[in-house]
Amino acid sequence: MYKVAIIGVGQTRFGEFADKGVKELFVEAFLEAINDVDKGIDPKDIKEAYIGNLGVGGIQLGNFSSMAVDQIGLHGIPATRVENACASSGFAFRSAVMAIMSGVCDVALAGGVEKMTDIPRDKLRYWLGVSGDTEWERLAGMTFPGVYALMALRHMHQYGTKREHLAMVAVKNHKNGAQNPKAHFQRETTLERALNSPMVAYPLTIFDCCPVSDGASVAILCRADLAKKYTDTPIYVAGFGAGTDRLSLFEREDFTTLMASVLAAKQAYKMAGIEPKDVDVAEVHDCFTIAEIIAYEDLGFCKKGEGAKLIEEGETEIGGRIPVNPSGGLKAKGHPIGATGTGQIYEIVKQLRGEAEKRSRQVSGAEIGLTHNVGGSGGTAVVHILRRG
Amino acid sequence: MYKVAIIGVGQTRFGEFADKGVKELFVEAFLEAINDVDKGIDPKDIKEAYIGNLGVGGIQLGNFSSMAVDQIGLHGIPATRVENACASSGFAFRSAVMAIMSGVCDVALAGGVEKMTDIPRDKLRYWLGVSGDTEWERLAGMTFPGVYALMALRHMHQYGTKREHLAMVAVKNHKNGAQNPKAHFQRETTLERALNSPMVAYPLTIFDCCPVSDGASVAILCRADLAKKYTDTPIYVAGFGAGTDRLSLFEREDFTTLMASVLAAKQAYKMAGIEPKDVDVAEVHDCFTIAEIIAYEDLGFCKKGEGAKLIEEGETEIGGRIPVNPSGGLKAKGHPIGATGTGQIYEIVKQLRGEAEKRSRQVSGAEIGLTHNVGGSGGTAVVHILRRG
Repeated sequence: MYKVAIIGVGQTRFGEFADKGVKELFVEAFLEAINDVDKGIDPKDIKEAYIGNLGVGGIQLGNFSSMAVDQIGLHGIPATRVENACASSGFAFRSAVMAIMSGVCDVALAGGVEKMTDIPRDKLRYWLGVSGDTEWERLAGMTFPGVYALMALRHMHQYGTKREHLAMVAVKNHKNGAQNPKAHFQRETTLERALNSPMVAYPLTIFDCCPVSDGASVAILCRADLAKKYTDTPIYVAGFGAGTDRLSLFEREDFTTLMASVLAAKQAYKMAGIEPKDVDVAEVHDCFTIAEIIAYEDLGFCKKGEGAKLIEEGETEIGGRIPVNPSGGLKAKGHPIGATGTGQIYEIVKQLRGEAEKRSRQVSGAEIGLTHNVGGSGGTAVVHILRRG
Repeated sequence: MYKVAIIGVGQTRFGEFADKGVKELFVEAFLEAINDVDKGIDPKDIKEAYIGNLGVGGIQLGNFSSMAVDQIGLHGIPATRVENACASSGFAFRSAVMAIMSGVCDVALAGGVEKMTDIPRDKLRYWLGVSGDTEWERLAGMTFPGVYALMALRHMHQYGTKREHLAMVAVKNHKNGAQNPKAHFQRETTLERALNSPMVAYPLTIFDCCPVSDGASVAILCRADLAKKYTDTPIYVAGFGAGTDRLSLFEREDFTTLMASVLAAKQAYKMAGIEPKDVDVAEVHDCFTIAEIIAYEDLGFCKKGEGAKLIEEGETEIGGRIPVNPSGGLKAKGHPIGATGTGQIYEIVKQLRGEAEKRSRQVSGAEIGLTHNVGGSGGTAVVHILRRG
C-alpha cells in the first residue's frame, strides 16, 4: 500500500462573510492550498477530490462535488461529496488517503466548505439538529446544546467536573484563537465572563458553545514517495481511524464518552505505532467545552474522569504537556461544519512545519500531531495522526 | 493492491411503499444481502460501510451513515455517507472497493436507500432539481425532464434520432421489467402507447421518464483472495472509473454526450483490460430514454450518433449483441435515487451468476457486465466492470 503525505493546505478565515458564498469560499481555500505547495504544483496533477459539506440550509446547490471541482477548473476528475455531519471533511480526508493508498491516484484533494450565517436561526436549528437522533431526541425538542449539556451534567455527577473547568476550556481556546488570524473570534476572554454569560442549556453558557461560521479548507495529498517533488516539508499521514455509535444517547452505555472517538483513536494509534503520550499537539472537536474534556479522555491524553484535572493543571495549554486546539478550536476558530475536519488538518500541518503564524501559537518542536473530528453528538468520529519527516 | 470481489447482494422491490421508511427499506436490503452469501457470513465481519442517499425531502434523518449502520446492528464500524446525486451509491460502491484495495478492511458494505413517494410533488421537484445546475438552470425554471429534453432535441437534430427510437427504449425496458419481480413497473407497454402518452417536456412523454420510487440495495464486498471463504460464486470487480463535468449544459461543448460517462468508461475499460465489445450485459442510467441512447454511445457500444440504430436493430434487447438494462432499468425497475447505483450492481451480479429470477430476463452465459450510474444531468458519473470467475 502506498503511504500518503500532505503537500499543501489552505483555509479561509472562519467567520461571517456576507459577501461570500460556498463557491467563493471554496475557491479561496483551494488557491491558498495550491500556493502553499512550496515547489509548485500544476492543479491538473490532482486526479481525485473528496468534498465535505453538510449542506446547511438545504442543498441549495446539489451535485455538490461536481460543482466544487467545476469551480476550481478541475471538472473531469472523479469527485465525491462526503457528508458525515460535523465530521464531513474529516471523513473526506480519510477517503482521499485511501484513494492514494489503493493506487487509484497519486495526488488527491480533500476539502470542505459551509455557509451558515445567512440561514435564519430557526432553520439553522433544524439543519444542525438532524445530525443527532431525530425520532427520540430532535422531535422531542432536544437541540445540540441540550445533548451536550446532558453529557456535561453526567460528567459533573460522575467525576466531579465543575462549570469552572468548562469555562477554562473556553478561556484557553479564546486565548489561542486570539493568536490565529484565521479564527472567527480573535479576542481573549476571562473565567468570570465565561461563567456569567447567558445560559444556553444548563450547565452550558454561550461561552461553552462554538459559534456559527462560514468557511472553507483544503488539503492536497500525494503519494509519500512522490511528495518531495512538490515540497521540501511534506507532512506524513502516519495513521487514521474512524468509528460510529448509536445515534441516540439513551441507547449508549455511557454519556461521558464517545465510543466512536475511542474506536477511531485506537485504530489510528495502532496504525501509526504510537501511544497517546507521543502526541505533541492536537486539534480536537470542541463543539462544546465539555466535548474537549471528554476528548482528552477518549483520546487517552489522560485517564477516564481526569479531563477536568488536565485542563485545570494547564497541561493542554501551549507550553503544557499536550497542547490542544492551538488554533482556538471550534470554540474560537469557528465551526463551519463541512470545513472543520480539513481545517484541523490545516492547523496541524502548520504546527508540524513550525509555521503557525504568530509565535505564541506555535507548539515548539512538534513532531507528531493528531486531529479529532466528530459528527453530531458522536454518531461518527474520525482521527488522523500526522508526522513530520 | 488487493483485488475485490462481491460476495452478496440484496435489493428491496422498488416501488411505492407507504408502510416503509428508509430504515425499514435499508434493513430489508441488508438482510437479503447477508442471506445471499451462500456459505454464510457473520455480519460482524463487515468492517466498513458506504451509504448512498440523496436525502430527498431534506435530510430529515441526518448523520445518515451512522443511523444506517446502527439499524443493522453494526454501530461502531466506520461509515460514510456518499452523496453524488443520482450516482450516490455508485460512488459509495467505488469508495468501498478502494477501502478494500488499500488494505484498510477485508470486508465492506456499499448500499443506498431513498424514500421518495411521500414527498409532495412541488418539494420533490425542488429536491431533485438541485442536482443539476441551480444558478443558470433551476432558478430559471428548468427541471430535469427539460434538461434531458434539450439533449434529446439536439440528438434528434444532429443524428436524426426520432421520437420512435426513444419510445423503443421504453418498450424494451418495460418488457424486461415485466420479468423482474423487484421492478417498480412489471407491465409491458407498446410503441403506440409510449408515443401517445402525456407530454412532459417535448419530445419526452411520461413513458420517456423514470418514475419516483422508494427502495434500497446493498452489496457486500470482500478481498478477492478471501472471497471463496464466503461464496462459491464470487463476482469480481475488474475495473472502475469515475468522472465529472461542468454542471450547466450551456458550459459543455456538446449536449449529445455526457463527458463524465466517457471519462468514467475509459478508465474502467483500461483497468479491466477489456474493450466495449467484450461486455456481455450492462445496466445503464436511463433516467430518461434519451439517456440510454446517449449511454450506448458514451460507453462505446456503438459509434457516436448511432445509438438510435442500436435500439432499432434490437441489439440491446435480451438476446441481442449487447443486452442493456435487463432489470428494466431506471425506466421500469424504478429510480429510488440513492439505491440505484448498488441496485445496478445487484442486477449484474445476478446476471453473471445466472440467477436472474425469471428465465426470459437472463442474459445467457454472461461473463462480463457493466454498470453505469449518472449524477444529475451528468455532473458526475461512475462505471464498474464486473466479471465472473
